[in-house]
Amino acid sequence: MNHNVFIGCDKEYKDAGIVLFGAPFDGTASFRPGARFAPQAMRLCSDGIETYSPYQNKDLSDISVCDIGDLEFPFGEPQAVLDIIEQKTAAIVSDEKLPVMIGGEHLVSLGAVRALAQKYSGLHVIHLDAHADLRNEYLGQKLSHATVMRRIWDILGDGRIFQYGIRSGDREEILWGRHHVHTRMFNCGDIEHAVKKTQDMPVYLSIDLDVLDSSVLPGTGTPEAGGIGFAELVEAIKKISPLHIVGADLNELSPHYDPSGASTMAACKALRELLVAVG
Amino acid sequence: MNHNVFIGCDKEYKDAGIVLFGAPFDGTASFRPGARFAPQAMRLCSDGIETYSPYQNKDLSDISVCDIGDLEFPFGEPQAVLDIIEQKTAAIVSDEKLPVMIGGEHLVSLGAVRALAQKYSGLHVIHLDAHADLRNEYLGQKLSHATVMRRIWDILGDGRIFQYGIRSGDREEILWGRHHVHTRMFNCGDIEHAVKKTQDMPVYLSIDLDVLDSSVLPGTGTPEAGGIGFAELVEAIKKISPLHIVGADLNELSPHYDPSGASTMAACKALRELLVAVG
Amino acid sequence: MNHNVFIGCDKEYKDAGIVLFGAPFDGTASFRPGARFAPQAMRLCSDGIETYSPYQNKDLSDISVCDIGDLEFPFGEPQAVLDIIEQKTAAIVSDEKLPVMIGGEHLVSLGAVRALAQKYSGLHVIHLDAHADLRNEYLGQKLSHATVMRRIWDILGDGRIFQYGIRSGDREEILWGRHHVHTRMFNCGDIEHAVKKTQDMPVYLSIDLDVLDSSVLPGTGTPEAGGIGFAELVEAIKKISPLHIVGADLNELSPHYDPSGASTMAACKALRELLVAVG
Amino acid sequence: MNHNVFIGCDKEYKDAGIVLFGAPFDGTASFRPGARFAPQAMRLCSDGIETYSPYQNKDLSDISVCDIGDLEFPFGEPQAVLDIIEQKTAAIVSDEKLPVMIGGEHLVSLGAVRALAQKYSGLHVIHLDAHADLRNEYLGQKLSHATVMRRIWDILGDGRIFQYGIRSGDREEILWGRHHVHTRMFNCGDIEHAVKKTQDMPVYLSIDLDVLDSSVLPGTGTPEAGGIGFAELVEAIKKISPLHIVGADLNELSPHYDPSGASTMAACKALRELLVAVG
Amino acid sequence: MNHNVFIGCDKEYKDAGIVLFGAPFDGTASFRPGARFAPQAMRLCSDGIETYSPYQNKDLSDISVCDIGDLEFPFGEPQAVLDIIEQKTAAIVSDEKLPVMIGGEHLVSLGAVRALAQKYSGLHVIHLDAHADLRNEYLGQKLSHATVMRRIWDILGDGRIFQYGIRSGDREEILWGRHHVHTRMFNCGDIEHAVKKTQDMPVYLSIDLDVLDSSVLPGTGTPEAGGIGFAELVEAIKKISPLHIVGADLNELSPHYDPSGASTMAACKALRELLVAVG
Amino acid sequence: MNHNVFIGCDKEYKDAGIVLFGAPFDGTASFRPGARFAPQAMRLCSDGIETYSPYQNKDLSDISVCDIGDLEFPFGEPQAVLDIIEQKTAAIVSDEKLPVMIGGEHLVSLGAVRALAQKYSGLHVIHLDAHADLRNEYLGQKLSHATVMRRIWDILGDGRIFQYGIRSGDREEILWGRHHVHTRMFNCGDIEHAVKKTQDMPVYLSIDLDVLDSSVLPGTGTPEAGGIGFAELVEAIKKISPLHIVGADLNELSPHYDPSGASTMAACKALRELLVAVG
Repeated sequence: MNHNVFIGCDKEYKDAGIVLFGAPFDGTASFRPGARFAPQAMRLCSDGIETYSPYQNKDLSDISVCDIGDLEFPFGEPQAVLDIIEQKTAAIVSDEKLPVMIGGEHLVSLGAVRALAQKYSGLHVIHLDAHADLRNEYLGQKLSHATVMRRIWDILGDGRIFQYGIRSGDREEILWGRHHVHTRMFNCGDIEHAVKKTQDMPVYLSIDLDVLDSSVLPGTGTPEAGGIGFAELVEAIKKISPLHIVGADLNELSPHYDPSGASTMAACKALRELLVAVG
Repeated sequence: MNHNVFIGCDKEYKDAGIVLFGAPFDGTASFRPGARFAPQAMRLCSDGIETYSPYQNKDLSDISVCDIGDLEFPFGEPQAVLDIIEQKTAAIVSDEKLPVMIGGEHLVSLGAVRALAQKYSGLHVIHLDAHADLRNEYLGQKLSHATVMRRIWDILGDGRIFQYGIRSGDREEILWGRHHVHTRMFNCGDIEHAVKKTQDMPVYLSIDLDVLDSSVLPGTGTPEAGGIGFAELVEAIKKISPLHIVGADLNELSPHYDPSGASTMAACKALRELLVAVG
Repeated sequence: MNHNVFIGCDKEYKDAGIVLFGAPFDGTASFRPGARFAPQAMRLCSDGIETYSPYQNKDLSDISVCDIGDLEFPFGEPQAVLDIIEQKTAAIVSDEKLPVMIGGEHLVSLGAVRALAQKYSGLHVIHLDAHADLRNEYLGQKLSHATVMRRIWDILGDGRIFQYGIRSGDREEILWGRHHVHTRMFNCGDIEHAVKKTQDMPVYLSIDLDVLDSSVLPGTGTPEAGGIGFAELVEAIKKISPLHIVGADLNELSPHYDPSGASTMAACKALRELLVAVG
Repeated sequence: MNHNVFIGCDKEYKDAGIVLFGAPFDGTASFRPGARFAPQAMRLCSDGIETYSPYQNKDLSDISVCDIGDLEFPFGEPQAVLDIIEQKTAAIVSDEKLPVMIGGEHLVSLGAVRALAQKYSGLHVIHLDAHADLRNEYLGQKLSHATVMRRIWDILGDGRIFQYGIRSGDREEILWGRHHVHTRMFNCGDIEHAVKKTQDMPVYLSIDLDVLDSSVLPGTGTPEAGGIGFAELVEAIKKISPLHIVGADLNELSPHYDPSGASTMAACKALRELLVAVG
Repeated sequence: MNHNVFIGCDKEYKDAGIVLFGAPFDGTASFRPGARFAPQAMRLCSDGIETYSPYQNKDLSDISVCDIGDLEFPFGEPQAVLDIIEQKTAAIVSDEKLPVMIGGEHLVSLGAVRALAQKYSGLHVIHLDAHADLRNEYLGQKLSHATVMRRIWDILGDGRIFQYGIRSGDREEILWGRHHVHTRMFNCGDIEHAVKKTQDMPVYLSIDLDVLDSSVLPGTGTPEAGGIGFAELVEAIKKISPLHIVGADLNELSPHYDPSGASTMAACKALRELLVAVG
Repeated sequence: MNHNVFIGCDKEYKDAGIVLFGAPFDGTASFRPGARFAPQAMRLCSDGIETYSPYQNKDLSDISVCDIGDLEFPFGEPQAVLDIIEQKTAAIVSDEKLPVMIGGEHLVSLGAVRALAQKYSGLHVIHLDAHADLRNEYLGQKLSHATVMRRIWDILGDGRIFQYGIRSGDREEILWGRHHVHTRMFNCGDIEHAVKKTQDMPVYLSIDLDVLDSSVLPGTGTPEAGGIGFAELVEAIKKISPLHIVGADLNELSPHYDPSGASTMAACKALRELLVAVG
C-alpha cells in the first residue's frame, strides 16, 4: 500500500489522463477551520474503499490517474494561494490532462476556474453545495469561502453557473442569485436542466461536500442538516458524467470534526465516483 | 458577535414579541444526562448559521426576539425547577409576549404548560418526539422526562395532546395512549389532522429533538434510530405555523455526545425555523 | 438492572427458546478492528432501549431469551475461534434452542453456519451487508471477514445465498456473485424474492450492520455511505420473520468508533427487532 | 471473564471480607454530570489491569471481595439516595464485612458515613480531594457534592476530618476549614500526621479522584490541574493502610469525558490499590 | 451566571483596573488551527473554577477586571489583525488600564507589544513557551506564530527578551537566540534571573500555554511533551508578580483538540492566577 | 512535505546508515487493538515536530535515515508476521545498516531480535515498558504481546535482559523475572547499571511507549498510570546512546485512542530522540 496517493491513482504523470492534487488551504474559514487536513486524510483512508464503483460499473484501474500530492502554500495569503493553484491547473491543462483538485476550503475553486477560463472561453460551472457562496464581501473580504461563486461569476458572467442543493445563505445573496445564476434549492432535483444547458460546453464541476446532509458528512466546517443523501450525490455525478468536463474539485471535508471517520470514508467514495465519471 | 444570545435574537425585552430563554435542567435524565448544556452550546454555535430561512423565506430580523439567557435552578429539585419555569413563563405571557424555551430535558415543558393552561383554558399540545412520555411513574418518580406528557394530560385531559414521530415506549403506555391522546407512530404523516383539530385553539408546541433520526441528531440523551429527517421536521413546523401558537419549546439536545457539532448545528437551524414560524 | 445480559434476555437457559451469545472476535479485520467490543457495549447500552417493539407489537418479555455471555477465544487463531463457535452453536441446537450470535467481525458467521449446515441439509442464508464478502482470498487468507460468504458458499453451493444492500466489492467478486448467489445491490428492494425462494427451508439470517447507511451506523470497521435506513432494515426483518429461521447473527458493530453512542443504540434496537422476529 | 464484577472481586457474599458496591448517582453535579457511569465503566475496563499490585506486593486473590453490583436509586432525590446508601452500608457492617463504595459523585460518601458513625462513635475521616467540599450551602442546597464534607462535619465535629490535596474552594470555606478540619493544601505531604492522629481510631477513607492531577484523570466532572500524580496517591494509600479502616470509597470518575479510557484505567488501578490496602 | 465574561471579570469598564479581551485569530497556524475558539471556550468553562486562588490567597473579586469580549478580525489578513490589536491595546493603556489578552495564536502578542513599546521605552518581555519563535521567516512569511519573538526583538533589541521552558525549535533559531535573548531551556528554573534583570522596568508577560507539558494541556496546536507542570507555571507567575507588569497575554489554547475539557479548565485557572498576580 | 516518510528520514536506501520501517501488526492485542495505525499516524504527524533535538543538540539531518515504509503482513498469523520482520531485519543488517522498527504491538520485537541474535552472539536487550511481558503463555498463546520478553529470553537466556519502568504483571511472572532478568520497577532509576553491564556488547533497545505515564501517552492499548515522564525517557535514551546499539524499536502507540493527538506527537519526539541517539 502506498499511503501517499489516493487508492488506485498511482500512474506515472506522463501516462496519466487525470492529475489529482491536494489544495490544503483553509485560511478564510470563518467558523471552523480544518479543511487543510482533508487531502492527506483521504489518501490514508482510501485503503478502506474499493477501486471498483458498483454504481458506474467502472474501476479506477480502468482510467489513469496520477496523484501528485499536495501543493505547498504560504499561510495567511489567500491571493498567493490562488495564484499557486491557478498556475498548477494551467500547467496540467497545458500537458493535456484533466485537473481534479481536493480542497481545502471552497475558495480554492477560484484558482482552478481562473486557469480554465483562460483556456476555455465558454466555461460553465456546475456547483453542488449547501451554501450559495454568492456574497460580494464576507467579513470585509472579497476573497472568501463565502464569496467564491460570486468571484467566479465576476469571471464567467450571467447564466454560466448552475447551483444545486443550496439551503443556506443570507437573504440578499439568495435574491441576487435569482437574477444571475441558476439555483435549485435543497436538492439536485432538476440536474437534467444543467446537463441540457451545458451540453457541448466545457464544464467545471465543483462539489462542496456539505451539500450532503450533515448526518452523512458531519466532518465539515459548517455542517448543514436537510441536505441530500449519498445516493442522490452519486446520481447527480452520473448524470453529469456525459458532459465535457474540463476540471473538477471536491472540497470542505474537515476530517477532525468527525472522529468516527465516516465523513472521510464518504468523501473517498465520492471522489472515486467523481474520478470514474470524468475519466 | 454577541455570543450570549442566539443569533438574531438581540432585541430589547420591551420591544420583543418573542422571549427566548434557556432551561438548563437534566436532573431526571435516567440514561445519559447533559441536556443542561444545550442552551449555551446553541447560542455559541448559532454564529455558524444564517438568520435567513430559505424554507420559509423569512429572517430572524423580520421578527423581534429577545434572548434573556438561562434561568437559574437549584440542583436535584425537579418541583422547584418547574416552579421557576412556570413563574417565568407566566411573567412573559403577562407581558404579552410569546415564550419560547430551550431545554434541558423534556420535563421542563411541564412548567411552561402549567403557566399557559392557567391563561388559556382550551390549551392543546402538539408534541414531536421519539418517546411517548406517557408513563404514570418512572423509576418511582411522578416527575420525569418519561412521564411529562402524562402530567400534561393530568392538566389538559383527553383529546388535547397530538403526538408525532413516536417510536419508543413500553407497551402499557402505548396502549394507554390510544385511548387518551392522538399518536402518530414513526413520523409526522398526518400532521394536518392536528392542524385541523386545533384550529382556533391556543396551541403549545413541544419538540423533543430526538424525534429526528439518530443519524441527524446523535447528540441527545437517548438517540433513536428510525426517526424523521430534518426536512420532514421543517415541513411539520411549516404546517403548524398558521395555528394560534401561544408557547413553544425545543428540548433534549445533549451537545457533548456529538463531538462533530452537527447535532448542535441542526438544533440551531430547527430553532430558527421554529422562531420564524411562530414569530 | 443486570448489566451482564442484554435487556429482557434474562431467562434461565433451560427455559429459553432462544440462546443469545457474544462472539467478540475481530482478528481478521484489515482496516479498523474493534468489533470485539460490540457484545459488551450492547449489553451495557441496552438499558437505554425498551423491551417493547412498536414495529412488531411484540415485547422481549413475550419470548424467552437467555443471554449466556461471551465465548472465550484464543487471539490470533481464526480457525480455533471458528471451532469454538461451531461447537457452541451445535450444542445450543442440540438443546433444541435457537442460536442468535452477536459479533464480532463477520467471519464469525462461518462457525455458526458450519454447525447449522450439519443439522439442516437444506440450509439457506439471507445476508444483509454493504460488502459482498465473496472473495476467494483476501490478503493471502482464506478465512477473513472479506471471504466469509465465499466460505459459506463452499458449504452450501449455488442458489442458497441471498444478499441485500451490497454496495462495495472488487469487480471480480461482484461478477462471480452474479453466477452463484442472488445479489440485490444497494438496498433490500426485492427481499420478497428471498422470502419466496426460502419458504419451507431452514434459513440462517446474517446481518452485517454496515448494511445500514454510514450516517446511521458510523461505528463500524468500514462505514459505507449509500446504505439503507433503519426503517428499511426493520422492514426487511419483518418480511423475513415468517420464515423458518434456525439461527441468526448481527455483526460488525465497532462501538468505539462512534463516540456519540448512537451506533450502539441502533444496533441494540436492531437486535431487539431480530429477536422478536425470530422468537 | 465476568464483566459484571470488578476483576478479582468474585467471591460469594457469605465468604467475603470486603463488599464492593456501586453508587451511580450524580444528581447534584453542578458543572458536568456523568459520575453515574463510573461503576459499570470500571467493571468493564478492569479486564485491562492485573489483580496483582506490585506496589504492595499483594493480589486481589489474597483477599476476599464480593462485588454486589450497583444500588438502584430514584432520580432527582438526593435524600432518598443517601438513605439507600446508609441502609446498605449498615447491612454490610452488620454482616461484619467492610464496605467499599464506588461513586457516583462525592455526596454518596455522606450516606456511608452516616451508617458508620452510628456504629463507630470515634469515627474519623481521611479525605483526598481537589476541592474542600466544606460549603454550608451550594446553589441553595444543603446536600451537594460541594457541601459533603461540611455535612460529615455536622456529624463528626471538629478535629475528625483530615483533608489532603485541596486546591480549589471559595475563600470562605477555606478559612472556615482552618478552624474545624485539618487541611493539607495541594498534596499529601504530611499524610503521616493524619496516620498518627487516627491511630487506634476507626477511619473512613474517601478518595475523590480529582485529587489526581487533571493530566492523570481528565475524566471527572471538574478536572483540576496542579494535583498529585498516581504514584503519590498510591504512596498515600500505603501509608494509610495500617490504620483501622472501617469503610472507604472512590468517587467522581466521569468516564465519558475521557475518550482515551486512561482515566478509567487509572481509577481501576487506584481501586485495586485501595482494596489490597484495606483487605 | 453571565457566560459572556470570564468568571469574576464583570466590572464596568470605567471602574476596571484591568481590561480583558479576546483575540480569536489563528490565521498563521501551520499545523493545527483552532486557537480562535479559545476565548469563548474559556469564558464558558470558567463557571467550573473558583474566583479564589489558594496559591496566591487572592480573589478575582479583590481586583477589578472588565472582560470586554472578543475583537473582530478580518480573516486571512495578519497585518490587519495586528493593527486592530495594537489600536485596542493603545486605547486601554491610554485609559490607564492594564491590558490582558486571551489568544488566539501567539502572533497576537506582537500587536500588543507594538502598542506598549510606544508607551514604555524600556519595555522587556518575559516569554513562557515550548517554542523559541525566533525564526526570521517561516514558510515564506515574516508574520507568523513561529516568528513572533523575532519580530518583537526587531522592536526591542538585544537583552530585552527572557524565554523559559523552550524545548523545540530549529537549530538555527536556537543558536541565534543565544546571542540575542536569554533562553532557559526546558523549564523555568532560573526565573529569578529575569525577575532581577527586569526590576524597575516595564514588563510584558506572554504565556504560550504549550509551555505546559502536553499531558497537562493537550488542547493546543502543537502539543510538546517534556514541559513544565501546572504547579511550576503558577510558581513562575507568582515570582513574576512583584514586577511592573504593563500588559500580559495567554495564548495557543485550542480547545477542540481536548475533548475532555481539561485543557480549557487548566487555561482558565492559569488566567485566574495571571489576573490576580498582575491585579 | 513528503507525508510518506517520517520527517527528516528521506535519504536514499543506499546512502542511509539507519533504515526505519513500520510493522503495523496488532493481532495478539487482547485488550484494545489499534497499534497497527501507529507508523502511518507518526509519519503524518511528524510534520509538527522539528528535526533538531535540543536535548542532544543533534539534528536528524546530521544522520542519514531512510524510511522504507510499512511491511505488509497477512492478518491473523503471528508466526508469519514474525518471519517477515525477521527476514527484513536480516536484510537490513546484511546491508550493514542499523534497523529501527516502529510497531505495532510489542510482539514485533521478537522478529527483530531473532534476526539480530543470529548475527550477534552476545546480544543483550534493554527493555523499557510498563509491563513485564514475561509470561510463558497468555490466553493459551505462546506468541503474544504479553509473552514477548519470555520468548526473547528463550533465545538469549539469563542475564541478558534489562527491564525498566515495569509496574504491571501477574505475581508469577514478576517472581520469575527476579531470577532470570534484571528488572527495575516503576522507573529508570538505575539505568546506569544496564549501561555498565552491556558495555562492549551488542544491544537491542526496545521501547514500549506505555512505559510513559498514561497522562503523557494515553493513546496506547493498555495505558498505565504511575509511569515515567517524557524527560525521564529522554534521559534514559541519552544514557543508553553511547552503547553499541545494533537495532531498536518503539512500539504500542495506538493513535486513535487519543483524539488530542498528543500521544502521537510524544511518540514522534521519542522516535527523533531514539534516532539521533543511535545515529
